[in-house]
Parts: sequence; structure tokens; C-alpha cells
Amino acid sequence: MLNEFEKKIYKFIKNYNIYEKYDKILLAISGGKDSMSLLKVMYKISKIMNLEIGVAHFNHKLRKESEEEKIFVEEEAKKLKIKYYYGEANEKNYKNIELSARNMRYDFLFDIAKKNNYNKIATAHHMSDLVETIIYRLSRGTGIYGVSGLLPINEMLTRPMLTVTLKEIINYVTIDNVKYKIDKSNFENNYSRNRIRNKILPELELINDNFENNFFKFARIAWEYRQQVENEYLKRIHQNENKFYFDIKKDIFDEEVLRLFFLRCKQYPPNYEETKKIIKMGSKKSKQFKGIKIEKNKNTLIIERE
Amino acid sequence: MLNEFEKKIYKFIKNYNIYEKYDKILLAISGGKDSMSLLKVMYKISKIMNLEIGVAHFNHKLRKESEEEKIFVEEEAKKLKIKYYYGEANEKNYKNIELSARNMRYDFLFDIAKKNNYNKIATAHHMSDLVETIIYRLSRGTGIYGVSGLLPINEMLTRPMLTVTLKEIINYVTIDNVKYKIDKSNFENNYSRNRIRNKILPELELINDNFENNFFKFARIAWEYRQQVENEYLKRIHQNENKFYFDIKKDIFDEEVLRLFFLRCKQYPPNYEETKKIIKMGSKKSKQFKGIKIEKNKNTLIIERE
Repeated sequence: MLNEFEKKIYKFIKNYNIYEKYDKILLAISGGKDSMSLLKVMYKISKIMNLEIGVAHFNHKLRKESEEEKIFVEEEAKKLKIKYYYGEANEKNYKNIELSARNMRYDFLFDIAKKNNYNKIATAHHMSDLVETIIYRLSRGTGIYGVSGLLPINEMLTRPMLTVTLKEIINYVTIDNVKYKIDKSNFENNYSRNRIRNKILPELELINDNFENNFFKFARIAWEYRQQVENEYLKRIHQNENKFYFDIKKDIFDEEVLRLFFLRCKQYPPNYEETKKIIKMGSKKSKQFKGIKIEKNKNTLIIERE
Repeated sequence: MLNEFEKKIYKFIKNYNIYEKYDKILLAISGGKDSMSLLKVMYKISKIMNLEIGVAHFNHKLRKESEEEKIFVEEEAKKLKIKYYYGEANEKNYKNIELSARNMRYDFLFDIAKKNNYNKIATAHHMSDLVETIIYRLSRGTGIYGVSGLLPINEMLTRPMLTVTLKEIINYVTIDNVKYKIDKSNFENNYSRNRIRNKILPELELINDNFENNFFKFARIAWEYRQQVENEYLKRIHQNENKFYFDIKKDIFDEEVLRLFFLRCKQYPPNYEETKKIIKMGSKKSKQFKGIKIEKNKNTLIIERE
């Protein structure tokens, strides 16, 4: 019943426990080939896995075709008897197009999901997006924890198509005659992203025509690293009343766990050098960093938020 | 006495313990701007740190200017009263230019170092080379252990200039009037490397003009990861007569340590899936992999080489 392309995604969902029986999943559908493939694949998989799916379309109102796309997605959802949710941009917010287009869309998705009891959201990010993200983050600065930022599952957000490339999607919509209207790159006006997609990826392909799968393999290892950082966080940091006690074990995870602590406090974490200084400060010393007081006692950091 | 550029390299040498007093270091000098900068910087640093340096020049005999370059490097070494060693390519070996040019040069360097009691070799690899290597390896497939392959110190090989970019080198040779003849890219005829250098790096610069330092920061974290893999190797694998006992701890390092074991046996390591299968096989089961027998007993792998 599933073809090779769909099987690949199904296997990925199984391997990474992205969904389980009775999940209620809101699909983010722009109407482009990526998301229309997501809709078709998830429709089939929902029958096999006993999932409930809904379609959410956000109209950015940036192009004249928006109205047409809205109707297209709505009709496709109706044909499949899938619930359809619609939202549109507030034009007042369009000062910084790049940032707010994305933010508005996500706000809409989370809002619809919450109001309608969806426990997961699915986006159509694919393997080529993953490669883009890795290159983008390395250029702008990241560690191993951050490099693979596009995760198969991250709290409510899920990305079941990370296992297929844009080429495979193009092949799928062509051979399987999947209807679509637009391409997300048309309205996500991100200069750097477009530069990576249009200039760098074609060069990488000339170096190795399997480069996307190679980056993907790297990402899988980075995901596991990220998971271990989170496991180590639970092992090393304990809360007691208003204080957090952090057992330093003198390995690479000390620094990762400290940075993660800041992230979870919604604070921008200390940089590489600052992190090392905090970890390595002498016993009985203390530091203040962004409203967080850190005191050292032997191999324990005692952390207090103001 | 040291300018900003030289100080940066000196600080890097200190931070990573690349050299210590009385080290005898053989500098690989082609005559290009990278290596002539290395020569000048290391000459100054050798006085401060009490190091002994020698110059090794390898003539690839691939271009008509080779003879001139040879004489140039020899004269520059003489001016500084530094020992000079010369080697040249055996033209019979030039079937695969790319591979053997590099191999011949390294064979020459290690051979000269050994015969003349140099305990370290220094090459002029810089931060832009590091970025190239990261992109190249990601495209061809690598994990976190392999991604940062250019290390500041790897057994005898040292790379004190990883902390400066090509632009900084160009600035240095211009302002400090460092004489040089050629550029290594002229004779290292590597298609993929040149593609990254000439097509991809300029694009990355448009995305973030500090991209090289950002990749460098990532590499520093990957170096620490690599160090920890090596520490875990020592903790987890013990030899007893002909057998190796590997204590599985159920974290990401199990797989890294297993792959490193194969590398140290001069065997190509199992891939991601194969590694997982070996680590996760049931107790009392065994597998044969490239002439290496692996048996599991509870949480221990018992490994025997044939």
C-alpha cells in the first residue's frame, strides 16, 4: 500500500517514535510540494497507525496568489475529509517580514493545536532543509548541541519528512501526481537560506552526490549527543527549594549542561570562554551572570535565580 | 616583540600545549604565503619558548617554477640560520597526482623528522583550511569524532596556524613584508577542495563575515568531544592477553569507542547501523566483522583479533 517514498517516512516515524497510536496531529500545509506531500503521506500513514490528522493553513497575504492557495488547500482537505483550520497574517506586523512571517505562522499553529486538542504539530521540513540548517548554524556559530537544530521530534513539533530529500519530494509529486500550488521559498524571504539553497547546495552536490544523506548521518549522531546532554542534565542538576545543585563531573557535558540550564531559564547562555570560567572557578568563589548567581562548593555549583 | 597576528598564534600554542620548551620542530615550508608566515612566526616564537626549528621543503616537480621555489626556501632558511632539508618527488609515482603528492610529502616529512630527531612537525594549515575540511567531511560523511579532523596537535603533527584565517595571513605578509613565492593551491590539485575554497567560502562570507571564527568555535568543541572519546576508550577497553574487554555503558560513547577500536586496528570501522547492532546484540551472541570476532557477555564485549 505504501510506495518506497512513503515507506521511508513511515520507517523514520517508527525508528524515532515520532507518532504513536491515537495521536492527534495538526499538519502545517502551505500548499507547496513539500507540504502537499506531507499531507498525502500522513493521510496514508494515519490510516495504518490510527492517527487523527487536521490541516492548518496560514495565509501570509504577501502575494496575489494567496487567496487561490487558501482555497486549494481547503478543497484538498475537504476531499480527504480532514478538518481544516485557517489563519491569516495581520499586516500591521509586517515590518520585519522574515521574522514575523515565521513567528505568526507558528503562533497560529500552536494556538489552533491547543484549542482543538492536537497533541502534535507536523511540518514538512525535509533533508535538504536539514543540510541548509546545519550550514547556516555553523556559519553563524553553534556547538554540537545546536548544530542539528531540526529535530524529528521536539516537544509538540514533529518533522517526519527529514528523512527525504527535496529531489525525492519532486520525484514523488511528479510520479504520484500530487497537486500543489506554491513553494515555501517564495514567501519565506530569507536571504541567507536562499543563498545556501541556491548557491551552496548545488556546489556540494558536485563534490558528493549523496551529500544530503551524509549530512543526515551526521545529524543523527548530533541528535543522540543532544539526547545525552539532556540525560546528563537530569543526572547532574537537582533542585532543592529555590536552589539548583549542579554536580560537576569534569567532562564535556558539564559545559553543555550549564548552557542548557540558562536556555531553560530563557536566558541567552554564557559563551564558550565564560562557560569554562564558571565551571572551573575555585571552590567558595561565586559569579553573577545575567541575574543568575552561581557559587562553587568543591565540585558542586549552587545556582540561584533572582 | 610579537605583533597581534603572532600573539594570536603564540596564545593558541600555549592554550593547546602545542609546543613546550626544548621541542625540536620540523616546519613544512612550500614557499607560499601560509608557510612563509609559519616560518617567520615560528622563528620568533622559537626564541621566546626555547624551541629548535628546522625547515623541510618538498619539491613536487609539477611546475616549471619548482626549482626557483626550492632555491628561495633554502636561502630564506640560511638567512635565519635554520637547518634546511630537501626532498623531491619521484615522478614514477605521479599516476594519482592528488593522493600521492600529499602522501609523498608527508612520507618525506616523517622520514626527515625521524632521522634528525625532530619530535614535532608543523604545517601551515589555517582557519580557512579548517572550514574547508569541515564542509568537505560533512559532504562525504562523518560523525562528530571525524568532523574536526584538522587538530592543533595529533601525535607528531602540529598546526599552530589554525587560529588565523587566510585573510589575516594575507594581511600579515603584506604589512610585515613577508616574502613568498607560490600558493599551495597551485600544486595541490584537489577538485573538491578548490570548489569549496573558491565557490562555497565566498558565499558563506556573505551570510556571516565572521563565519570562519564561528566554524572554529564549533571545531574547538568537536576537539574536546574527540578527546573525551579517547578518554572513554581508555576507561572502557582493557586488554588481557589476546582479548580486549569492552564495558558497555549505554551512552553515545559506546559507539564512538567501538569505531575507534577498529581504527586503531587499522580497519575501516563499522558504519552507524552496524555499530549499533554490535553494541546492542544479545548476551552470549557473537559477530564476526572484518576479521575481528566480537562476543557479548552481559554488558561486556569480548573482542578478539585474528
